[in-house]
Amino acid sequence: MHKLLSQLESASDLHNMSVSQLQELGAEIREVLCNLLSDRSAHFASNLGVVELCMALHSVFDFRRDRLIWDTGHQIYPHKLITGRYHEFSSIRTKGGLMGYPNPAESEYDLFMTGHAGSSVSTMLGLRSGDDLLGESDRHAVAVIGDGAFPSGIVHEAMNNAGGLKKNLLVVLNDNKMSICPRVGGMASYLDRLRTNAFYTGLKTEVVNLLNHVPVFGDPAERFLAQLKEGVKAGLHGGMLFEELGFRYLGPIDGHNIPILRKYLQMVKTLQGPILLHVVTEKGHGFQPAAEDPVFFHTPPVFQRENGQAVTTGKSGGKAFTNYASEAIRDQMLRDPRVTVMTAAMCQGNKLEVIRDEFPDRFFDTGICESHAVAFAAGQAKAGARPIVDIYSTFLQRSFDQIFQEVVLQNLPVAFLLDRAGLTGPDGPTHHGVFDIGYMRIFPNMAVLAPGDAYDLPAMLDFAIKHDGPTSIRYPKTTAERIEGERSPVELGRAEILSDGNDGTIWCFGSLLKTCIEAAEQLKEQGLDVGVVNARFAKPLDMAAIEQSLSDSRFLVTVEEGQLMGGFGSAVLEAVNDAGLDASRVRRLGIPDQFTEHGTREELLADLGLGVDGIAKACRELSGLGVRQPEGETVQ
Amino acid sequence: MHKLLSQLESASDLHNMSVSQLQELGAEIREVLCNLLSDRSAHFASNLGVVELCMALHSVFDFRRDRLIWDTGHQIYPHKLITGRYHEFSSIRTKGGLMGYPNPAESEYDLFMTGHAGSSVSTMLGLRSGDDLLGESDRHAVAVIGDGAFPSGIVHEAMNNAGGLKKNLLVVLNDNKMSICPRVGGMASYLDRLRTNAFYTGLKTEVVNLLNHVPVFGDPAERFLAQLKEGVKAGLHGGMLFEELGFRYLGPIDGHNIPILRKYLQMVKTLQGPILLHVVTEKGHGFQPAAEDPVFFHTPPVFQRENGQAVTTGKSGGKAFTNYASEAIRDQMLRDPRVTVMTAAMCQGNKLEVIRDEFPDRFFDTGICESHAVAFAAGQAKAGARPIVDIYSTFLQRSFDQIFQEVVLQNLPVAFLLDRAGLTGPDGPTHHGVFDIGYMRIFPNMAVLAPGDAYDLPAMLDFAIKHDGPTSIRYPKTTAERIEGERSPVELGRAEILSDGNDGTIWCFGSLLKTCIEAAEQLKEQGLDVGVVNARFAKPLDMAAIEQSLSDSRFLVTVEEGQLMGGFGSAVLEAVNDAGLDASRVRRLGIPDQFTEHGTREELLADLGLGVDGIAKACRELSGLGVRQPEGETVQ
Repeated sequence: MHKLLSQLESASDLHNMSVSQLQELGAEIREVLCNLLSDRSAHFASNLGVVELCMALHSVFDFRRDRLIWDTGHQIYPHKLITGRYHEFSSIRTKGGLMGYPNPAESEYDLFMTGHAGSSVSTMLGLRSGDDLLGESDRHAVAVIGDGAFPSGIVHEAMNNAGGLKKNLLVVLNDNKMSICPRVGGMASYLDRLRTNAFYTGLKTEVVNLLNHVPVFGDPAERFLAQLKEGVKAGLHGGMLFEELGFRYLGPIDGHNIPILRKYLQMVKTLQGPILLHVVTEKGHGFQPAAEDPVFFHTPPVFQRENGQAVTTGKSGGKAFTNYASEAIRDQMLRDPRVTVMTAAMCQGNKLEVIRDEFPDRFFDTGICESHAVAFAAGQAKAGARPIVDIYSTFLQRSFDQIFQEVVLQNLPVAFLLDRAGLTGPDGPTHHGVFDIGYMRIFPNMAVLAPGDAYDLPAMLDFAIKHDGPTSIRYPKTTAERIEGERSPVELGRAEILSDGNDGTIWCFGSLLKTCIEAAEQLKEQGLDVGVVNARFAKPLDMAAIEQSLSDSRFLVTVEEGQLMGGFGSAVLEAVNDAGLDASRVRRLGIPDQFTEHGTREELLADLGLGVDGIAKACRELSGLGVRQPEGETVQ
Repeated sequence: MHKLLSQLESASDLHNMSVSQLQELGAEIREVLCNLLSDRSAHFASNLGVVELCMALHSVFDFRRDRLIWDTGHQIYPHKLITGRYHEFSSIRTKGGLMGYPNPAESEYDLFMTGHAGSSVSTMLGLRSGDDLLGESDRHAVAVIGDGAFPSGIVHEAMNNAGGLKKNLLVVLNDNKMSICPRVGGMASYLDRLRTNAFYTGLKTEVVNLLNHVPVFGDPAERFLAQLKEGVKAGLHGGMLFEELGFRYLGPIDGHNIPILRKYLQMVKTLQGPILLHVVTEKGHGFQPAAEDPVFFHTPPVFQRENGQAVTTGKSGGKAFTNYASEAIRDQMLRDPRVTVMTAAMCQGNKLEVIRDEFPDRFFDTGICESHAVAFAAGQAKAGARPIVDIYSTFLQRSFDQIFQEVVLQNLPVAFLLDRAGLTGPDGPTHHGVFDIGYMRIFPNMAVLAPGDAYDLPAMLDFAIKHDGPTSIRYPKTTAERIEGERSPVELGRAEILSDGNDGTIWCFGSLLKTCIEAAEQLKEQGLDVGVVNARFAKPLDMAAIEQSLSDSRFLVTVEEGQLMGGFGSAVLEAVNDAGLDASRVRRLGIPDQFTEHGTREELLADLGLGVDGIAKACRELSGLGVRQPEGETVQ
């Protein structure tokens, strides 16, 4: 099976393929993609949509030497299949296997490991200018960017710069009318107009018809001007917005028509300066259910094809933190009319569709524009609203400076919900949300929280809405457990002591609380009495409780699902040091100073010593080593 | 003197002023601004340019209730003078006095404390939507943004969102053809075309002339289309780029003509939806030398007016870190043709004009687009170049996510030069570069350096260019001293031990090294033997040298010009803890967990205990307290 794919020796084989051979190859690629989904959740609809575009690009350029970046990168599967990774393709998104995003370690065809949207035009302009500088101007430079990523501010910055530098650069705008969720904003409407007027109804006829009805001579110029403007606005011109920035606009062209794609790509190879080629594709193309519901099929659960239909198998497991967050947001919005919610194109991922539908006036999807979303929320907060910013931990990095200037510097009550905080599993290093404890706690005024379980999350959001300042609440992409027993309310800077321990105490910040409790149970069976504290706050810290733990037990272990460098454990060390106490009986568990690969969250946590066994082992070691080490001897 | 200004009771007094009164008021404002500069360095040309615009805005709106944000904020002086701060104006930019930027603590007329460019459209859209939500739709919303800030990505994100939401929002584009440096990029050319064709040569005539020469009927539609497009591109329409995003474009209008400004502002008050009003101003207007050289007069040194000319007084002091950096960059560029340099509109501030002129092909000013600048540099590095990214510490926060994804995740050799790292003095909290140690060191692969003196800086840049990975080098806005004695070369993760001390050791990361040496000298006179270490690296740390210090002396003091939370001292605590050592003899000096006001750098450092006396005092306390504290007792 997959006769053509299995025999491809190099992507350059596509140079000599006929259109019908490419169509056959495309069918094989779609077959592989559909089969993959019978086995695992993976990016799907976006990959189906770029099959022809990907083949056409590789048949016209040679990307061993030419430069290609797929923006965001989740549409990289056809590219991987074509560039020598067909035989290992079944390993994709599994531990040790192919990454679900571009990965330079896998192939010379992948230039940047990406996952965050919008940087491709910048990096490609950098490659272009670097190649020019080093005498390699013959290398063509191509960035493929979706219309979802396109409104991202950095794209505008890059186009502005490229338009000024006038470098040879091809930006392929892959317009499928979708971000992960339906896209929003002025740019979306503009692309709609471009697409509708030119591609579908035919450009030339409209121009002539309109001009026949415009009285040119004898009328006041002003009146004509207004009409001309309206005419142009209606889409009679092509891509003036891009042309104004210094790009030459071509298109829109049909992104599933291989001869047209090749013709245009051949043509732009010969043109000078920055070019924007507008390609219209259908997300999910070639598999009817996906084309009809591209939101669901962006990263669908495992499904079986039956008569061309997708039959999804039942989802397992309990309710995720994300669900609890969504419910908690809804509760707050029902209770308080000042509460609003912002997301950056993650309406689906954050399970906010129900809120969007129920509170359309208080739900704001900015598209993939995290920087704006945060500053926008700050403005709302200043006006008296109580905005909740619901963005994945890793993507919120885009708003670092807005968190600084617009939120914490003004001390405004913006509540950040950092979904996917921790190891996100099969997406890998571009998506792990492991830096936020460090990047949030360095800011004055910011309260940094993490729920230990399903009980904590709504209680923390309630705290945040009432708190007169910025708050950050992080939680992972996993099922939220519920810790048994009587629970204490969430109060600023107060930890929750779940159990005391004479031997040691585990201080857990957030997601691994249940794991820590199980580790303590394992240790109890082994004769070690280790208490567990639900830290709740990384800032402000509950110093009284930390001192209590240090005086009541022989060691203190901090546990966090985040980078150790600058993280929660580091905050504890600072506080202990500021108090003049000896921190040598403190040990920090978390993610070491390196990037974590992809795999299931459980696999990755176990590898990092953050599973039940790893945490218990660390406690046993500390216990065996006694109270204090003589100076100079290190704990192994 | 200043008859009108001194009698203004409220900005709303301007509502009833005649044009000639406003002109008189404008003259008084300019008089105050010119006088101020005879006394201190301050933002100047941008303030002269907005005098009429500011008065017109306050005479048409009532910003006690209506919403006004001056983007970036350094053009806030006329606004401050009008809104009740005339009598304390002479205190501006001095410790305890008025801030040089908007400050909500000073006045209800200042909504956001700003300093970083481009967020005003986002925050104003937030205010607008918050006011609508809370039933206060009568409040008008006005953001004033310069053409320098305008290409910033977040502005595009905000306009995209505003265009989609169709909210009532006025964005005044204050187009003075300048960023701090001459502006660059496609947007700049576009604004040039808009300005030239419409405002100066008259719109209507050109339209008629052009149309008279276009053969409409009988020609192929395509040929006409091309011409139409060129016509539109030539600037015959007004602001189509903004109209496409959903904004109504008005202008350009003369920003120094009060009646025209009032007429247009009155008109837009009655319009619905988002509006962009294009106002053309002259930076430095009303003071000839500033109008002629707005770059120099952006923040000029103290000058005296003589016959309408500015006579600057001699600058004092030695060579600044910035100068050494500029020279070191030039040396590297002379030596290695792969070396490039990027800046984000800070060509002047970073003293890069000489490099721009000498190496035009390897100098890249992206405008105020820090996110793009970093991703652009990453692309160049991937192509084999050796880019230096030269951006102020505080503004580099805009690139946090690009530092993550485009640089450290790919482990690319991009050298970051973080100018203005530390307390920047009179600019205040929006500009202090005090978070970078924390935000840089949390990333794997990043080497985090700070020069201790003028010797270190070029040596560190040389190290960075040769290092096979990302590096970050931070230095403050001050004179660079040169430490006496034989110096050791800069090597990865190696500190430089300048002197040993039996009593204690000061570990200084960067800018305060000379201060630490002086503190050690003071302590020596008092009988305390305290050594000084030039840490050079916050990451990787020289753990062997730290252990040596801990074993050779009774205490270790870390010193940094940055936030303590997550900073250099925190890194030392982590390392000491990881080594199983007792860190209770370590004390961290730096900036506490709060925002630091404005003042001279020396004043602020002294207040924070980071002057010679403060550091010496901390050492004496540690020494007097002996080796270790009993548990639970805190060091004061």
